Amino acid sequence: MCEAGPDTAPGRAGVNPQGVIGKKRDGGELTDAELEYFVGGFLDEGVTDYQMAAWLMAVFLRGMTPGETATLTRLMVESGKTLSFPEVPGRKVDKHSTGGVGDLISLPLAPVVAAAGVPVPMISGRGLGHTGGTLDKLESISGLETGLDEDAFRRVLRDVGFVMGGQTEELAPADRRMYALRDVTATVESIPLIVSSILSKKVAEGIDALVLDVKCGRGAFMKTEEDAIRLAGELCRVGTLMGKEVVAFVTDMDAPLGSAVGNAVETRVAIDCLRGNGPEDTMELVGTLGRAMIVLGGRAASWDEAGTILDRALDSGDALARFRSMVEAQGGDASMVDEPDRLPRAGHEHAVSAPRDGFVTDIDPFALGEAVVELGGGRRRADDVIDPGVGVLLSKKPGREVKAGEALAVVLASDPGVGKRVAGDLNKAFTVGAAPPPPRPLVRHLVTADGSKPWAGAATWDGRGSGKPARTNP
Amino acid sequence: MCEAGPDTAPGRAGVNPQGVIGKKRDGGELTDAELEYFVGGFLDEGVTDYQMAAWLMAVFLRGMTPGETATLTRLMVESGKTLSFPEVPGRKVDKHSTGGVGDLISLPLAPVVAAAGVPVPMISGRGLGHTGGTLDKLESISGLETGLDEDAFRRVLRDVGFVMGGQTEELAPADRRMYALRDVTATVESIPLIVSSILSKKVAEGIDALVLDVKCGRGAFMKTEEDAIRLAGELCRVGTLMGKEVVAFVTDMDAPLGSAVGNAVETRVAIDCLRGNGPEDTMELVGTLGRAMIVLGGRAASWDEAGTILDRALDSGDALARFRSMVEAQGGDASMVDEPDRLPRAGHEHAVSAPRDGFVTDIDPFALGEAVVELGGGRRRADDVIDPGVGVLLSKKPGREVKAGEALAVVLASDPGVGKRVAGDLNKAFTVGAAPPPPRPLVRHLVTADGSKPWAGAATWDGRGSGKPARTNP
Repeated sequence: MCEAGPDTAPGRAGVNPQGVIGKKRDGGELTDAELEYFVGGFLDEGVTDYQMAAWLMAVFLRGMTPGETATLTRLMVESGKTLSFPEVPGRKVDKHSTGGVGDLISLPLAPVVAAAGVPVPMISGRGLGHTGGTLDKLESISGLETGLDEDAFRRVLRDVGFVMGGQTEELAPADRRMYALRDVTATVESIPLIVSSILSKKVAEGIDALVLDVKCGRGAFMKTEEDAIRLAGELCRVGTLMGKEVVAFVTDMDAPLGSAVGNAVETRVAIDCLRGNGPEDTMELVGTLGRAMIVLGGRAASWDEAGTILDRALDSGDALARFRSMVEAQGGDASMVDEPDRLPRAGHEHAVSAPRDGFVTDIDPFALGEAVVELGGGRRRADDVIDPGVGVLLSKKPGREVKAGEALAVVLASDPGVGKRVAGDLNKAFTVGAAPPPPRPLVRHLVTADGSKPWAGAATWDGRGSGKPARTNP
Repeated sequence: MCEAGPDTAPGRAGVNPQGVIGKKRDGGELTDAELEYFVGGFLDEGVTDYQMAAWLMAVFLRGMTPGETATLTRLMVESGKTLSFPEVPGRKVDKHSTGGVGDLISLPLAPVVAAAGVPVPMISGRGLGHTGGTLDKLESISGLETGLDEDAFRRVLRDVGFVMGGQTEELAPADRRMYALRDVTATVESIPLIVSSILSKKVAEGIDALVLDVKCGRGAFMKTEEDAIRLAGELCRVGTLMGKEVVAFVTDMDAPLGSAVGNAVETRVAIDCLRGNGPEDTMELVGTLGRAMIVLGGRAASWDEAGTILDRALDSGDALARFRSMVEAQGGDASMVDEPDRLPRAGHEHAVSAPRDGFVTDIDPFALGEAVVELGGGRRRADDVIDPGVGVLLSKKPGREVKAGEALAVVLASDPGVGKRVAGDLNKAFTVGAAPPPPRPLVRHLVTADGSKPWAGAATWDGRGSGKPARTNP
């Protein structure tokens, strides 16, 4: 007879799980006490998985304020261990990317910034779907260990100036439990939930400042510049509320970064970068993110000074030497850094040829990322095993002239049948037109918590692009 | 590094739970195949409780079309047993109310309609929160059994012309499981979910037509007339899509119905109705709903003819005799029908007195319903045990003149301390003013699936009220 449950009767007071869910469902702003009750209840089983799932969907559709998101982030941080490094002098700075195709930036960036005197305690992830992961790329170096315990992590940071590890079970376990639920309840793509997930892990790792690379375009999580700017702004606002200095760059992911996609092939490109002959777009991003980290780390007073320091870190060989030291300190075969030909490389090559004379006008990064997954170099599921030697070498980036039949890309496959099929499919990922495409800036926007532009003189990142016909290398 | 889960990658095809949740989250219309997959998966454990909870919240915030709701309803019906009564001639008609205070209508209505020749296989619920339940009222008659098995249900329907049972585990089990989740995830108050829950149980009971009483006001689930009309319209549209003839009346629940609230006291009022001396408002609603059921049951061609048949069923004593037969057939003590003084009645009486001379201008039905729960006559939780003898007798309904100190109501309590406290609290539920309130129509709207007004000549239910100063008895 009666459809209404007791929880919906007016006049009921006090906090209960349904009450918190219902308040968010109706667009209300949750108090710290309500969030503490709900997230705390989830951790000690007083709030069920299905109540959390309903709440996550309500958050997805109703949003959260920066204050609510900061409180949620804090609760996630407090759910586990937090690191700090008083034994390492200086401000600790990290970088986080929302994930792209050919995005190997972390590998050259961390040693460059460390060589500039800024300690980088970097905790990275693995690839999933069409985007790669820093840990997988690093592990293409034989023996290199990323599953460091706290002592090892501290030791490498102290001795080398940077360290590259993976998230442990102890950091932000609430995030891991909530992410597992989000993954199967279609609640991943929510800005406040993405922000709290990213920042909880970064705050727990004991940093003082954070530089974010928020990708936008077909190969990115955020497809449009508007969405990327919204996410970047929220990351900065919430990070600032958590007491961290945070800036975000919105960068293009409508084309793949660099000259290769895959694990060992990207590690090789990273070593090229540290040797001074990296792809132009990759080096532009290393330069931009690196300068920001050096300024936030307190090692330069201006953008230009940071640039000078960064160039010196590269030119002196110090950055390369530190990368080599990190590889050794984490158990890897440093000879692979010295002789990158020793890195794994799949044995079968299949060219993707230009169908006509003209100019490369477009490369679909999503198709490229999926091709690498298909080759066995990425994961469809979190427990898939990856093949480090497969990948795609990009012979021509957008803007380059080609002749009919000339190679646009080379597919490296372990299985020739798979390689042939992938190379055939990849034809559709390349567009060859009669004229070169207009130049497209790589670094689109600098976003800060309060909308200020701290480094307004730097043309490479002020939203107008560098003025150069970016993304035309190699 | 990468925040996006594999489920969110574009290019993923095929139905999976996240895909169905995500489509609804984004406001999409689910196909029959998608709903079958999702609800079927929920029943055989392929879709988890947390996935269903996220989907329920998405439905709450995004809605469903009548077609989606009809498919969901069908899947709920098909999750269990369905009844049909080929051995009973004639169109089977039932009535459903969304729940109110003092709403004992089912008790006199079913025998009246049965006496008019329309079989009524009625399955009712129990009270929860401030609204009462038909089964609880009936069970105030000693021995009366509402937990009938299918054979007993058929036998009483065939022999008496109507039957009043409770929902068994076998009817629409998917609804029961989903409702249990909704109750703890703040997803109860969703029109498509309410509609599918109500209709699944009614369709499963094997009816041909259904008359709905959708209450609106402070004592109802729907607080506003607009919300009640929306719910009524959706019930009619979805019921029609399911092949049933459905009409809905939107009726006032901004004041309690009738002259008593409680279980045995309402059963007594029901017997008064069948004896021809029921409260005016209760009889108006019995008349309106009863006429509609008689027309939909095919026993009258017009509203007026239905009224004549209904009056005859009451005046002849046939309706009372059938009520008595049902009580006997369901194992109850029929002497309580003959001598209502034998019904349970709590031993302690506490008057609620008028604070001044004047007119009763308002009675808050919610406060009255809560008072009965407080006395032990209702449930806060589904497993609470109720005391049938407690209740509140209304001495003066809105519009009646009172003198200072005269009783507005009498509280019947088993515990004098509780009774005294409840009577004290109830003072606030009554408003006594200098002038009588304007008359308020009880039956506000007739709603049909296509907006037609099949019985446009009947003044009592065309939305303008009966023209009488309704709700002024006793």
